[in-house]
Amino acid sequence: MKMIDQTALPTRLAFVTYTRPEQIAEAIRNMVIRGAPAIGVAAAMGVALAAFRSKSKDRSELLKELERSASMIRSTRPTAVNLFWGIDRVLKVARSAKSAADVKEVVAKEVKKMEEDDIETNKRLGQIGSNLIENGDAVLTQCNAGALATVGYGTALGVVRAAVKQKKLVKVIVPETRPALQGARLTAYELETDGIDCTVIADTAVGHVLSIGRVDKVIVGADRITRDGYLFNKIGTYQMAVLADRHRVPFYTAAPFSSFDLSQTHEQVTIEERKFDEVVYVRGKRIVPRGVPIFNPAFDMTPPELVTAMVSDKGLIERPFEENIAKVIS
Amino acid sequence: MKMIDQTALPTRLAFVTYTRPEQIAEAIRNMVIRGAPAIGVAAAMGVALAAFRSKSKDRSELLKELERSASMIRSTRPTAVNLFWGIDRVLKVARSAKSAADVKEVVAKEVKKMEEDDIETNKRLGQIGSNLIENGDAVLTQCNAGALATVGYGTALGVVRAAVKQKKLVKVIVPETRPALQGARLTAYELETDGIDCTVIADTAVGHVLSIGRVDKVIVGADRITRDGYLFNKIGTYQMAVLADRHRVPFYTAAPFSSFDLSQTHEQVTIEERKFDEVVYVRGKRIVPRGVPIFNPAFDMTPPELVTAMVSDKGLIERPFEENIAKVIS
Repeated sequence: MKMIDQTALPTRLAFVTYTRPEQIAEAIRNMVIRGAPAIGVAAAMGVALAAFRSKSKDRSELLKELERSASMIRSTRPTAVNLFWGIDRVLKVARSAKSAADVKEVVAKEVKKMEEDDIETNKRLGQIGSNLIENGDAVLTQCNAGALATVGYGTALGVVRAAVKQKKLVKVIVPETRPALQGARLTAYELETDGIDCTVIADTAVGHVLSIGRVDKVIVGADRITRDGYLFNKIGTYQMAVLADRHRVPFYTAAPFSSFDLSQTHEQVTIEERKFDEVVYVRGKRIVPRGVPIFNPAFDMTPPELVTAMVSDKGLIERPFEENIAKVIS
Repeated sequence: MKMIDQTALPTRLAFVTYTRPEQIAEAIRNMVIRGAPAIGVAAAMGVALAAFRSKSKDRSELLKELERSASMIRSTRPTAVNLFWGIDRVLKVARSAKSAADVKEVVAKEVKKMEEDDIETNKRLGQIGSNLIENGDAVLTQCNAGALATVGYGTALGVVRAAVKQKKLVKVIVPETRPALQGARLTAYELETDGIDCTVIADTAVGHVLSIGRVDKVIVGADRITRDGYLFNKIGTYQMAVLADRHRVPFYTAAPFSSFDLSQTHEQVTIEERKFDEVVYVRGKRIVPRGVPIFNPAFDMTPPELVTAMVSDKGLIERPFEENIAKVIS
């Protein structure tokens, strides 16, 4: 399994090959693989690698091995629900198989299908979301909800790509998205590569660009949308939503069905806190004095009253979200 | 004239010696000298250096030289009003002198006095502001409004220092303040050195820390407060004010009388846009792909309805600000 090393961008386009589930787990933990949909598929691939490498000829023994790998991969990151979705989906088909050989076969097929589905899902989602974009719109996003965050095409950036394909002029404003700089490093890289107009700003300038009327729409991805309509996404999303609301700019989230958590409400979600190093060092350079404590939450929660509508591959979800999420995502 | 090179912190404490007004202008432009009150005094010193170096024996010729240096220093940065205040103050005493020798003498004296006054002003301001701080408060700030931004003691951090001196427990939450990272580099350095409890967060986490109830008060400095009560301060201040308002957390600005612009309203203020490099490189490392446009405003504007009260060395200024600024600052 070969994937882009997202930590090396934008200065270097490097690929990493994974042959063991432990490597996948480590890559997810270190954000070499990141983006909720990409994490979902990669996690499933991790389980598939466990099946592929196993020497077990016994079905139930093999399933136990897969469960162990699944547990290890599940423990890497708590917030993006796609991680759990991807693992559960591949385990489910594994359990349905009649023999150890069958397990290996169905798991490999399922993972291949998930990979193909993800791109199709994003394209459908992009098509639906593109109706929200008008010619000439300036779109503010956060983090990277693009091709790099998915198997391909992207969610929030999938909407932009679909609008651009319809010959709409779209400008994208990209906050750098500290601490991990996914906006500056990844979103800017994707858009620049595709020839889509983009401008990078510091995260501190989000309120200012909204206040001077430079933004027409906000579109972000989602790491998890709970059944009561709360959006968990990259840190900085909540403040962007508050500011968009103040300036009456529509705020959309774009996410595949696998980012919707139909089993949980917002109180049950854990917001991951990541290590100090992400804030203290930028590309290896220290920016905070030694010994100073850091608080580094990786996600935040945006309440439903700040979200205008949700774009999914199953259709546009409008308010009331609790009711309509249940209807549209099934 | 010897000052700290603020661009080298927190990894190196370096001093720079200035002997020519051009060097002062360059240092202000490059933010080697930064912080509105520090800029005000440094600009005056630049004019004083011009007087000191001049070989002119003729009063009116010397005054013309000082005006030329003053123009050059004035052109460095447009937003912080202290720059203009410092220059005007020293030019005024220069013009009152009777001979070239007198000019040199009064200018040197005035600059010395401004330097001493700045610390006194901050201590008075800190004392007044400390009444707003309760024991155990967590204070969120932005950028660096500390000893490094002034001749000493600080404005927003002067309030914190005064409260700590009164044996109040105060924790400070410090957003790193991209692009120039004055929070991470300078505020954290000052507080750590003084043994004051501080925690650094990414700028994207401001909304989150407010939403989870971690902040009791917000206190920021000011680059200019116009007579109609609008606050111009480091980029990121406006969004912090909007978020504090949403979470009903008091939002204060702390500034000496020299940061109040009694002659202008908010429409007349220019918000400086700085060069791309500040966003593209962090401590020399590229974080944005080549060729991607950058928008880099250095300041933003916070409207009076988002400000709870203003702390000045002349007293606490409450609403209505337009009326009370005129009364208190004279």
